[in-house]
Amino acid sequence: MTQTAAILGGGVIGGGWAARFLLSGWNVNIYDPDPEAERKIGEVLANARRSLPSLFETDLPAEGKLSFGTNLEAVVKDASWIQESVPERLELKQQILAQVQAVCDSNAVLASSTSGFKPSQLQKLLDNPAQLIVAHPFNPVYLLPLVELVGDIHTVTIAKTVLVDLGMFPLHVRKEIDAHIADRFLEAVWREALWLIKDGIATTGEIDDAIRFGFGLRWAQMGLVETYRVAGGESGMAHFLAQFGPALKWPWTKLMDVPELTDELINLIADQSDDQSGNHSIRQLERIRDDNLVGILRALKTRNWGAGEILNLHDRQLRPEHTAPENKPFVSIKRSIPIDWIDYNGHMNESRYGQVFSDAADAIMEYIGADQAYIESGLSYFTVETRIRYLDETKAGERIYVNTRVLNADGKKLKLLHEMHHVDGRLLATGEQMLIHVDLNSRRACLPQTEVLAKSEQLAAAHKRLPKPDYLS
Amino acid sequence: MTQTAAILGGGVIGGGWAARFLLSGWNVNIYDPDPEAERKIGEVLANARRSLPSLFETDLPAEGKLSFGTNLEAVVKDASWIQESVPERLELKQQILAQVQAVCDSNAVLASSTSGFKPSQLQKLLDNPAQLIVAHPFNPVYLLPLVELVGDIHTVTIAKTVLVDLGMFPLHVRKEIDAHIADRFLEAVWREALWLIKDGIATTGEIDDAIRFGFGLRWAQMGLVETYRVAGGESGMAHFLAQFGPALKWPWTKLMDVPELTDELINLIADQSDDQSGNHSIRQLERIRDDNLVGILRALKTRNWGAGEILNLHDRQLRPEHTAPENKPFVSIKRSIPIDWIDYNGHMNESRYGQVFSDAADAIMEYIGADQAYIESGLSYFTVETRIRYLDETKAGERIYVNTRVLNADGKKLKLLHEMHHVDGRLLATGEQMLIHVDLNSRRACLPQTEVLAKSEQLAAAHKRLPKPDYLS
Repeated sequence: MTQTAAILGGGVIGGGWAARFLLSGWNVNIYDPDPEAERKIGEVLANARRSLPSLFETDLPAEGKLSFGTNLEAVVKDASWIQESVPERLELKQQILAQVQAVCDSNAVLASSTSGFKPSQLQKLLDNPAQLIVAHPFNPVYLLPLVELVGDIHTVTIAKTVLVDLGMFPLHVRKEIDAHIADRFLEAVWREALWLIKDGIATTGEIDDAIRFGFGLRWAQMGLVETYRVAGGESGMAHFLAQFGPALKWPWTKLMDVPELTDELINLIADQSDDQSGNHSIRQLERIRDDNLVGILRALKTRNWGAGEILNLHDRQLRPEHTAPENKPFVSIKRSIPIDWIDYNGHMNESRYGQVFSDAADAIMEYIGADQAYIESGLSYFTVETRIRYLDETKAGERIYVNTRVLNADGKKLKLLHEMHHVDGRLLATGEQMLIHVDLNSRRACLPQTEVLAKSEQLAAAHKRLPKPDYLS
Repeated sequence: MTQTAAILGGGVIGGGWAARFLLSGWNVNIYDPDPEAERKIGEVLANARRSLPSLFETDLPAEGKLSFGTNLEAVVKDASWIQESVPERLELKQQILAQVQAVCDSNAVLASSTSGFKPSQLQKLLDNPAQLIVAHPFNPVYLLPLVELVGDIHTVTIAKTVLVDLGMFPLHVRKEIDAHIADRFLEAVWREALWLIKDGIATTGEIDDAIRFGFGLRWAQMGLVETYRVAGGESGMAHFLAQFGPALKWPWTKLMDVPELTDELINLIADQSDDQSGNHSIRQLERIRDDNLVGILRALKTRNWGAGEILNLHDRQLRPEHTAPENKPFVSIKRSIPIDWIDYNGHMNESRYGQVFSDAADAIMEYIGADQAYIESGLSYFTVETRIRYLDETKAGERIYVNTRVLNADGKKLKLLHEMHHVDGRLLATGEQMLIHVDLNSRRACLPQTEVLAKSEQLAAAHKRLPKPDYLS
């Protein structure tokens, strides 16, 4: 049976919750007196609909039904999950939670998105305090998995099951505390940042660069402690902590109320770190970390953003100018095989051969003048057919090159042949690729511009003199 | 001319610097009295050699020459960059820097990796203080781009050029301060974490989960301020700050020495944020952020680590059991097209069609019993040839399905035909795929296990009754 979630407060957080539930097949009722609520929620939903399905290799359930209401009782009465995300004012939250509890199903999970308040504060006006827990998510709620749960263990247990079904990660905060766990770190960083800006040490842009080009990349995959465990190396966490200890007395932050680093605290941390990460050696953790960082950095490279933009600049610094020497094929690619192209068979996945040949075609495109500016002018080549022969395995880190020749350049049609070699000369794969020149506005075939056509014909004429391989179809 | 870098201190940081220079074509001289130095540097280099080339789509320069020495003068005399990474003890650093300056090229950049000390502290014994700057990198140095530069503007300017040539991101810290910028944040988080552990609120594992499943993912692509700018929405940064202000008085961290959030400070932050991010609207920034997060999360998914592991679990929850109904092709894939599969033509890149068909083959593999356990037993299928016809464009977010049939199952040979459809029924692409069964130890062709062969023959027999498409080669 389709379940119903009631969302109280339709801001960025409430909208994110609505999207998580709706795209997981739940019906969603929104309560928000703001006349703009429907538009605002609609914008969050549009963002969620374009990004959340991108995370999965399978269809999400069919969306539930979305409705808006101004009658609180009608909104909550059929809901098995009620999520309060109204503004961060204690009295406002206490009042609406009491109103809700008076009319909702007593078995429903009643949860608050509060960043800072403790359940005991929110429960003040409630007849059944145990029904109310904190379920604190992170923006954007439709993409980030973390939800901090605080409160009655019975309600938290039910909530965990629901959140896992939504694809989220419930973190049970076992003792209530102001700002739970994550926001304590955010608040500490925020306070330090305010000092740096106020004292003229760094601008907001410099602060963000210090985060996203350094430790921010680390924290997307391992947290604070596991990162230090790896940095500490073979001598172990307790040794690392003892070394690191003196800095606690140094003015490395303006936030100077520091716990004493006793042997007891050192051992507690070292033991917890063993429990957390001890099933991997430091050497294994280093490689896991590096592989993760390669994947994250390459993802940012595809988007040409942050650290990925720096990598793209460096690619352009490194890349030699393409030339088309007489009587030789065109060398379109020279590179090594990145770690993230390897599949469960321990070799480069077949689809990545296609990517290498697609990149090889791009090199030809650039050479004949069908480059970025040409595409922006509304013209491009689309591939209509490929035939790839996989002759030998290719492993991570192996260096390869691709010889490309133009087999045919005839008006709208362009036929390429790519031969991918190991740097030792072995032929690893061949790719025949048929392309058609298109108008990007009509998405239909059309003739290339004269100069582009001339340059492709010139390559075709030169390459015709090369001996024709016998495997060609 | 090949340049030379001298690395003083061969720990994790010194080794990381050595790798950056060496893999960028520099000669590298290492000075470290530790008899284990060569082994330790070797391990860092091995990690760097497998991961750093993975970041680029082109060859790195040929590696320079690596040498080790115990004569400080010989190690530094030809170097145009000298990087000190000895243990974090002020007197030790002061002494070695003075010894180096007495014998090195006066035009060389002399740089310290110190996390905490200011240039003025390190320069105490130097005749030419301006030659010494701080160049503070982040572990792993061979992957993370950030280097904080502090010191004389002339030396910093030269250093910037070198670091950009190494593919790194130099951040000029304009005023010297203990712990520069990034480590002030790390120290604040570390101090807060010590309280949480000491007070029994959270374990190290819970702390790391609170980071890597939440704000850590955000900070890999946008820092603190830009993230809040997006969260604040259309009402603007100054409005957001004013709202956020009261929390500074609340006990959201134990680190309570807080600057006063005056209008002046609010305006300073808002203006800097405009300079930093004002060329994108909030709506654009939201989409940039979401696309980045999708890419990062998908990268972690490939590695089945952190937030990626949670996504893989959810995929398994969502995925229906595959069935092979009589008189119908096998539905091998039902999914939507993720954002990161789109190329510069605004449609799914050709190589991703290959990936869809590779995944479709995996579904058949699982069905016939050539699954993970079978692969671990040393047997698998390798693709030897594919032919793909691209019939229509596919855009981000579009839902597709793939009908797969077994055209032939004959001993070691398996031939599949994949037809990729838009959810509206349109045929988008076809893929013919020839596979060979292999022994993963010898990497040679061999017969499948009896049950696997029987199941594939059974599918082939059923699918032979379907009408044969006329485009088949």
